[in-house]
Amino acid sequence: MTIPLEGRRVEVEKVTLARRSLVTIDDLSTGEMEAVFSLADGMSAELARQIPIESGRGKIMASLFFEPSTRTRLSFEAAMHRLGGGVISAVDVGATSLAKGESLADMARIVGSYADIAVIRHPWEGAAKVIADYAGIPVINAGDGGHQHPTQTLLDLYTIRKERGTIKGLKIALWGDLKYGRTIHSLIFALAKFGADILFCPSPGLELPEHIIQKLITEYGGEVVKPGASNGKSKERLFPLDAVYTTPTSPHQLAMMPDVSLEVELKTGVDALYVTRTQKERFATDEGDELKQKYPVVDKKLLKGKEFRRTLVMHPLPRVDELAYDLDTDPRSQYFKQAAYGVPVRMALLALLLGARESPVSGEEQIVPAVDFPIYHGKPGLRCPNSKCVSVQKTEIKYIEPEFKIVNRQPLTLRCIYCEHGFEPEYIASSEWHEGRSASKKYHSARSHWAQKIKTENLLVFTSAREAESHGFKPSHYTGGAAEK
Amino acid sequence: MTIPLEGRRVEVEKVTLARRSLVTIDDLSTGEMEAVFSLADGMSAELARQIPIESGRGKIMASLFFEPSTRTRLSFEAAMHRLGGGVISAVDVGATSLAKGESLADMARIVGSYADIAVIRHPWEGAAKVIADYAGIPVINAGDGGHQHPTQTLLDLYTIRKERGTIKGLKIALWGDLKYGRTIHSLIFALAKFGADILFCPSPGLELPEHIIQKLITEYGGEVVKPGASNGKSKERLFPLDAVYTTPTSPHQLAMMPDVSLEVELKTGVDALYVTRTQKERFATDEGDELKQKYPVVDKKLLKGKEFRRTLVMHPLPRVDELAYDLDTDPRSQYFKQAAYGVPVRMALLALLLGARESPVSGEEQIVPAVDFPIYHGKPGLRCPNSKCVSVQKTEIKYIEPEFKIVNRQPLTLRCIYCEHGFEPEYIASSEWHEGRSASKKYHSARSHWAQKIKTENLLVFTSAREAESHGFKPSHYTGGAAEK
Amino acid sequence: MTIPLEGRRVEVEKVTLARRSLVTIDDLSTGEMEAVFSLADGMSAELARQIPIESGRGKIMASLFFEPSTRTRLSFEAAMHRLGGGVISAVDVGATSLAKGESLADMARIVGSYADIAVIRHPWEGAAKVIADYAGIPVINAGDGGHQHPTQTLLDLYTIRKERGTIKGLKIALWGDLKYGRTIHSLIFALAKFGADILFCPSPGLELPEHIIQKLITEYGGEVVKPGASNGKSKERLFPLDAVYTTPTSPHQLAMMPDVSLEVELKTGVDALYVTRTQKERFATDEGDELKQKYPVVDKKLLKGKEFRRTLVMHPLPRVDELAYDLDTDPRSQYFKQAAYGVPVRMALLALLLGARESPVSGEEQIVPAVDFPIYHGKPGLRCPNSKCVSVQKTEIKYIEPEFKIVNRQPLTLRCIYCEHGFEPEYIASSEWHEGRSASKKYHSARSHWAQKIKTENLLVFTSAREAESHGFKPSHYTGGAAEK
Repeated sequence: MTIPLEGRRVEVEKVTLARRSLVTIDDLSTGEMEAVFSLADGMSAELARQIPIESGRGKIMASLFFEPSTRTRLSFEAAMHRLGGGVISAVDVGATSLAKGESLADMARIVGSYADIAVIRHPWEGAAKVIADYAGIPVINAGDGGHQHPTQTLLDLYTIRKERGTIKGLKIALWGDLKYGRTIHSLIFALAKFGADILFCPSPGLELPEHIIQKLITEYGGEVVKPGASNGKSKERLFPLDAVYTTPTSPHQLAMMPDVSLEVELKTGVDALYVTRTQKERFATDEGDELKQKYPVVDKKLLKGKEFRRTLVMHPLPRVDELAYDLDTDPRSQYFKQAAYGVPVRMALLALLLGARESPVSGEEQIVPAVDFPIYHGKPGLRCPNSKCVSVQKTEIKYIEPEFKIVNRQPLTLRCIYCEHGFEPEYIASSEWHEGRSASKKYHSARSHWAQKIKTENLLVFTSAREAESHGFKPSHYTGGAAEK
Repeated sequence: MTIPLEGRRVEVEKVTLARRSLVTIDDLSTGEMEAVFSLADGMSAELARQIPIESGRGKIMASLFFEPSTRTRLSFEAAMHRLGGGVISAVDVGATSLAKGESLADMARIVGSYADIAVIRHPWEGAAKVIADYAGIPVINAGDGGHQHPTQTLLDLYTIRKERGTIKGLKIALWGDLKYGRTIHSLIFALAKFGADILFCPSPGLELPEHIIQKLITEYGGEVVKPGASNGKSKERLFPLDAVYTTPTSPHQLAMMPDVSLEVELKTGVDALYVTRTQKERFATDEGDELKQKYPVVDKKLLKGKEFRRTLVMHPLPRVDELAYDLDTDPRSQYFKQAAYGVPVRMALLALLLGARESPVSGEEQIVPAVDFPIYHGKPGLRCPNSKCVSVQKTEIKYIEPEFKIVNRQPLTLRCIYCEHGFEPEYIASSEWHEGRSASKKYHSARSHWAQKIKTENLLVFTSAREAESHGFKPSHYTGGAAEK
Repeated sequence: MTIPLEGRRVEVEKVTLARRSLVTIDDLSTGEMEAVFSLADGMSAELARQIPIESGRGKIMASLFFEPSTRTRLSFEAAMHRLGGGVISAVDVGATSLAKGESLADMARIVGSYADIAVIRHPWEGAAKVIADYAGIPVINAGDGGHQHPTQTLLDLYTIRKERGTIKGLKIALWGDLKYGRTIHSLIFALAKFGADILFCPSPGLELPEHIIQKLITEYGGEVVKPGASNGKSKERLFPLDAVYTTPTSPHQLAMMPDVSLEVELKTGVDALYVTRTQKERFATDEGDELKQKYPVVDKKLLKGKEFRRTLVMHPLPRVDELAYDLDTDPRSQYFKQAAYGVPVRMALLALLLGARESPVSGEEQIVPAVDFPIYHGKPGLRCPNSKCVSVQKTEIKYIEPEFKIVNRQPLTLRCIYCEHGFEPEYIASSEWHEGRSASKKYHSARSHWAQKIKTENLLVFTSAREAESHGFKPSHYTGGAAEK
């Protein structure tokens, strides 16, 4: 079967997403995301022509929101109603039996026996994965702490694609809080997957975390370049550019002459400016810092620059002061459309995961192939160091078995499979020591050459010398002389 | 087309209310209210005969309640379900993104892209108007602070009309808290519009505000008379009558001999006694006041008087102590019926505003014609002095442009178009002074003859002398010598 | 009409439960419960075959939850959606007009005019009865304080019957908190009605209340035996058996030689182990008590005993620490199934009470016939002594008329018809004294022979001597010399 896609006829296959969950944006290939978008287009058209949609008839969506939200929850519930389905809702921790100390796994199993699909927002990072692991029904992550918010990313991409026809090759500027926003973190990797270039314009102090930059370079194969400081303060540019990611398929070699190339780049214009809410309270301690004072509000005046002539102005909302009301009627502004697209995009996603609809998926090759990392199972007692991770919460630690991807060996870097927090442990050892000869039971610095030598199946990881010693290990030469007491 | 109405055949036209909002009871003419009532009758009959009603099929109502409510919210939601539609709900500020500082305008636009109609309750006066201005879908005010609650008034009127066949010419007593109750404020003007007489029986200290009396006289053309103090304490009357409004179409001339006429009036009986909740906490500071101690609870004993023989006993509920349980089984009691009528009345309203139904509207002349007041746009910086007005809230002041109706010139009286709060500003000036000659740039007392002289397009209003002077004006002879520092 | 039931063909009649309420499990006969179960079977089958069920089409369920709950509320709401009906929900006291001081009766009448059926959870004991008395629509108790939770019992029984084919003659062990759990209290009487034997295995300090034991003996006609202390600590038994109830139809005579018989009994195995949540905070004050320290967690190890080989492991959930996660995949574990059965059981119940379905009820004789107790109407001023009883709450006391069943005369024991709390009042008198001769107006100890002598229609009950004296009574010889000041 062939269908017309971006002006060409391409080979496609009908793929069903039935019974799958959406926990992180990585759960969907670009082709599967395109399938969601194309069904969303279809459903928008059906809604516009008042064709009754029955894909959800007789089905129940559980809407579980353990953090404040109007937009996302109402958008999902509206989507399910538009599909003709029913909704059961639990809002707020106080009013639920979680207050009685119930685990997420128990809640998941029970909700899984009531509903056909579940949508969850939760303050713990990785909570959606746990729900998905135990519910036995498709689960959609509607935001889990600072981790991910993949359906926001879907509607962001849908908005760009709707206006520009494609995402590949576009230049997208991310503006504001690049440090804490889960919205931003989901979006960055999706843009990279689709082959867009990204301009990072953080509020001072809210720069993109280093581990995301590392992931972009090592797993997404592109380049990340920081323009020179002198250039960074250039008066020609109105906006505070901190770094640029260029997709591996881009022809340019930005790394060679970043400043010059950047100016060339920008002349062609920014395709979208994605603004996020900045929390003023973070600025209080740094008074007198001129740069922070001057961090610009996005308004009509700022967007007078040539590079913004055709720029889509986007915002996940709610906004506070970072985006001026004078842009609300500007034709470049997309943020209310973005929110509105939430309904058809979520309708399409729900219908696909419920198995009530199928959608053609193009057979195109992924720009960024998925990487399979070896898994470390956490023996003899390693726990994720992220205190917001679901796997270390009092009610969850009883049954969740920690697992980590070994994403790097030099330095040894583990990534929790729940919250995807990456960290570099202090000490390692091998479980394959000579039995009975305690002299061979040694632990080493994770920065020593042993980090590359010990086989995954024998690897033991410790966060402190004391922990290693409590398991009967003694310091080796390779503890770096910095063994803790 | 002619239909039988109140015993006569009258010319009617089918009017659609599609896509309109209901923010204050003034948004509906009496004919349009009759259209709602007649459709409510029809829908009640269909429900009784178990005929499936499909007017809401495929539609979504957003139910946004930012203040406690069971009755009103459940009534609206039941109405939408009875129409076959879907409901998305947000209850309580704490659980919504309003807590993140979002403006009502942003929320309105977003909800407007999810739902087909929205119902809003909010503590800020004028909030429903802002939602209606931005949502792009019909919006129904379910109570905005102390301002209005028009659907309560619709079901109150429906109850009276159901029992008496008409509202015109009836005598309705309002009882209890006439000062703060939004329910009462909506009801008074609707009764006046329909041509009913009103007896005001306030709890001491909770008398009808003066501005409402003024509005009744100037805009509704009737008379308001206060019976003599001696008569007011008459032992023959069981209830504490404070004032009487008589409709302009009434034949009597109550103002001539109020006390005598009143007794004559009352002999014909009170058609409805509308009781409202009185907040005990307001009485605490006035201990020893005998009148307050004696303010009667409405019970079987009180209603033994001849004038109450056929009186409909009404209450918007919830009640506390002002209405005794011994009346619950009394055939005069209407309050549970009132609540029950909420469902068909709201079904009819929803169906009409959604454009799913039409209803015949009689072509009869309005008793009280609408008045068009000139508008003052708030230059150079006037803000509504009501601290509960939506237009002065921190999140809203950024984008709401203040507007005031000039409802009187002597004394100059402005009415905020959002909260409908009326006030008399201190100072005025004209923007048409002789350029360059600062001597002519003067401000005057708003009580001087200048208040009538300055043209609306040139009018400038100040709430203090300082404010006037900060705009470069100097006091004139007409500042009354009372210029503030 | 005959249908096959438990392997035999029995005479049945189609019984409708239309318009009835379910306040306590006593509201349903065993035959009626079987009718619910058999319809639940049918509905499960229809769901499995994706047959659209329309029993709730056009109907509205009001879901009123004034205490935290996820499971029960979502289960009811899912059930109503699966029937094709609509749901209106009120969750949490804070967000409702109950906060304004409204009575349950008023709320009931109003909700009764909006919805077709109501489900209520409330912290006050007896609240569901009040709602049922005033709503005018069927009402289902979803938990009223520590009183009852009859639909939990229905799904518990359904689970047992599903796995064992019958409930009659089974041996069911109740484990954990037998003192406070409303779940347990509903279940015990239902098991007794169906003719099951019950093993009571309480956590120390959380033993079954004496009044329940008394009720089992006097109203359900069985025996309750406490095994000897020496035997109770037997090392052969892993679990802390405190008492055993044997159904009157059982052939054995446990009371004769309890310890020996028990061992014989247990060899045949426990059919179900019903575990409940134990609140750790209750143990804090009794440190050092070895027994409490050793109260076993139910886990795989505990269930290795022969008597548990075929035992169904049940739990109403949520669990905290009393039931180990290692049992989750054990084939004996039923607790997630139990929760899942909540949906079809509640669907069946809703459909029957709504009158949308009928179900055959077997004509079998009840094992435990209902007892009709004489009623005491509470004159001259008796109030239920249970401070959590709905009838003594500030907003309810105005209109609720107290009533008590006289469940025993020696000692005189009254049971409140609202919360079913039983108590022994202090003093009594007769209203039939010789008029005018105050010497004959005496009050007596409720433990004197007068308790059996005074006719119900003349009985007066006092909780203190002062109260009796305030009504003009004087102490008789039979006040036991213990008259209070």
